Amino acid sequence: MTTAGICTIGDEILIGQITDTNSAMISRELGKAGIRVTEMISIGDIRQDIAAAAETLLRKNDILIVTGGLGPTKDDVTKSVIYELSGSSSYVTDSRQLEIIHRILSSRGLDVMDINRRQADVPDKCEVIPNRLGTAPVMVARFPAGRFGHEAAMYSLPGVPFEAAGAMPDIVADIRKHFRLSEIHHKTIMTYGIAESALAEKISAWEEALPSSVRLAYLPDPLKGVSLRMSVYGQDEDAASLFAAETARLRDILGDAIYAEEEKTLPEVLGDILRSSGKTISTAESCTGGMVASLIASVPGASDYFLGSVVSYSYSVKEKALGVPREIIDRFGAVSPECAAAMADGVRKLTGSDFAVATTGNAGPSASEDKELGLVWVGVSSAKGSKTMDFHYRNDRKRNMERFSASALDAVRKFILQQSNI
Amino acid sequence: MTTAGICTIGDEILIGQITDTNSAMISRELGKAGIRVTEMISIGDIRQDIAAAAETLLRKNDILIVTGGLGPTKDDVTKSVIYELSGSSSYVTDSRQLEIIHRILSSRGLDVMDINRRQADVPDKCEVIPNRLGTAPVMVARFPAGRFGHEAAMYSLPGVPFEAAGAMPDIVADIRKHFRLSEIHHKTIMTYGIAESALAEKISAWEEALPSSVRLAYLPDPLKGVSLRMSVYGQDEDAASLFAAETARLRDILGDAIYAEEEKTLPEVLGDILRSSGKTISTAESCTGGMVASLIASVPGASDYFLGSVVSYSYSVKEKALGVPREIIDRFGAVSPECAAAMADGVRKLTGSDFAVATTGNAGPSASEDKELGLVWVGVSSAKGSKTMDFHYRNDRKRNMERFSASALDAVRKFILQQSNI
Repeated sequence: MTTAGICTIGDEILIGQITDTNSAMISRELGKAGIRVTEMISIGDIRQDIAAAAETLLRKNDILIVTGGLGPTKDDVTKSVIYELSGSSSYVTDSRQLEIIHRILSSRGLDVMDINRRQADVPDKCEVIPNRLGTAPVMVARFPAGRFGHEAAMYSLPGVPFEAAGAMPDIVADIRKHFRLSEIHHKTIMTYGIAESALAEKISAWEEALPSSVRLAYLPDPLKGVSLRMSVYGQDEDAASLFAAETARLRDILGDAIYAEEEKTLPEVLGDILRSSGKTISTAESCTGGMVASLIASVPGASDYFLGSVVSYSYSVKEKALGVPREIIDRFGAVSPECAAAMADGVRKLTGSDFAVATTGNAGPSASEDKELGLVWVGVSSAKGSKTMDFHYRNDRKRNMERFSASALDAVRKFILQQSNI
Repeated sequence: MTTAGICTIGDEILIGQITDTNSAMISRELGKAGIRVTEMISIGDIRQDIAAAAETLLRKNDILIVTGGLGPTKDDVTKSVIYELSGSSSYVTDSRQLEIIHRILSSRGLDVMDINRRQADVPDKCEVIPNRLGTAPVMVARFPAGRFGHEAAMYSLPGVPFEAAGAMPDIVADIRKHFRLSEIHHKTIMTYGIAESALAEKISAWEEALPSSVRLAYLPDPLKGVSLRMSVYGQDEDAASLFAAETARLRDILGDAIYAEEEKTLPEVLGDILRSSGKTISTAESCTGGMVASLIASVPGASDYFLGSVVSYSYSVKEKALGVPREIIDRFGAVSPECAAAMADGVRKLTGSDFAVATTGNAGPSASEDKELGLVWVGVSSAKGSKTMDFHYRNDRKRNMERFSASALDAVRKFILQQSNI
């Protein structure tokens, strides 16, 4: 099996200022292609350390992915290490990357300075995969079997996470061209609303009955719920029908807790449902502060079905913009099912949307109205009526806001499906 | 200077199932105590790999912190590696940890089984720091100078993040007892609105004139801008005054592009300004879809100054909720300075806030109204009047929404400061 090492470079990681998320992203992408990551290393912007780590990882693995240390400023030294390792004798300008640098900077109204131009200069023994999302190109150094005991390749990616993620498809394609990858098949089932340990109990009989060729992984995420990934390694022409049969069994157990049978997010699935039924949605938010709206809006083309939102942090906005009767707030409080329903109804009428979802709760760190910390009331509304439900979490403010938002998205998804009888 | 290596163990990290957050937490805690982390490694639950990594890191560093691989199940093999490394000849039961195991399991209504009891068994040559938050104790192996070329110590922590975090104070205290720690000082300056390369050019003279004891790092982030971190290693009683002098020089060059002289986010700084001046804010958002509001709301206590937001994705919400005259949209379009100003004025009047900020633009992937893709108009408003400005980015939808939101937060921050003459 083809193996890879990952090396992230940057003092900011070593001092704990930022958490390395690139390594996990890279290993997920490599894993999908059937490449096993054996080791991840984070080191500082120190030339000898980078060179030593690269040599060690290349000796142990077919592939080395390096991220970071490629910015225009002088604390980035990765390029000179690749220069040495690849046995280059000069730098050459990659015209494709230079064009991208010009395009990116001019679109921001910036002049292209020498320091920018130099980012397109690459060691002459390296190949280049242009980075369309940033100024630093991906560099590839290839090593014959004599060098590290086996054919090997080193890829250097920019450290900016979205640029690194954007470069991975090209890198995986390049690896496919140069290495014989063993086959791997995946099927991901997205679930929401059941905690990982409860889910494991619920599907334990199904899991035990899985064919031995299938490997199952639980992947929990605050915004996506728990996704279940089935993997079959090696050549298997029946993988698709095997996955289909197992997915059908899983659906019998989990029902509408499954929101997708492929890697999708809740806002994407909600968007699919709304677009295909020609319906529209709006949100009214208190404790989530606009996060539900921004998740819905994050999907390209959301303007087809998303009309708008009112974030009513103050009582007066709840009254004035959403028409929540003062009496409801006085009698039940803002963190109440009555208020959640009134907010959902209110924003639906204000925007004229078919559906609406509202949140009101206590994200923390302090609780209002003597209501429980971590409690959120979600209201959903359509012309046929409204419905409310409560969820309870016990995280910090940021994480609670994420959980509340995901629960609201899932609640309105189920509400729409039930009302549409899809 | 005392150095440390960090080794995290677990297949779930290598396949990208979970992101390693322990390493960043550990290095922050060590860094505060003046211990420099030189390397972080993540490897699988494989005995030889763990042993090899431990030996390598102990040869290079005074301290090795290992996390993970200590659970009760059989894929956790860290303990046997420490057994070997420490030259132990038997396991002994740590009575303090056994007591904790009984307490934790009984509080969850669980029986204490053999598999649990064995977690209190530790190699006889190890010292134990009881783990009050979980069942696996912290084990310490000490090595004389003869073993790795210098005195060294290895600490093994449980992998559960809150247990690992809970154990760090005890570990740092133990390190202080056994090693002479040198000092380290950091100072972070947060800037927004100047791209990394332009910033580097702008402050190059300042950077070159920095005392050689100061190390400078550029840390770009889409939501935070570029932060500049100065570090001074070793004993330096004048670090604070040195940092203050350099920061003052930097302020002369960068002016209000500096939004904080410590690690803070734009929404936190905006919140500080609003709270200290007793003012309130609201937002009106089109292309950012509620992200500006949710960033403001993400700060604990935001309800003191954040009144609410209207996300007006449709024209009709712009008219109905924000009172944007239809004429403005017909004549200039929604993506226009006129509309941005009207949205900001509208939400300020609706919520009764002192200040308001509005966004309208094209986040992509397609552009509306034949306006440029990646263009955002930001409007800011107060009783004294409104102001608009445009920003241009060229990223994908999600990243554009982040850049637009951060630019809006920075624009309203500067607007409030200018109006308040702070």
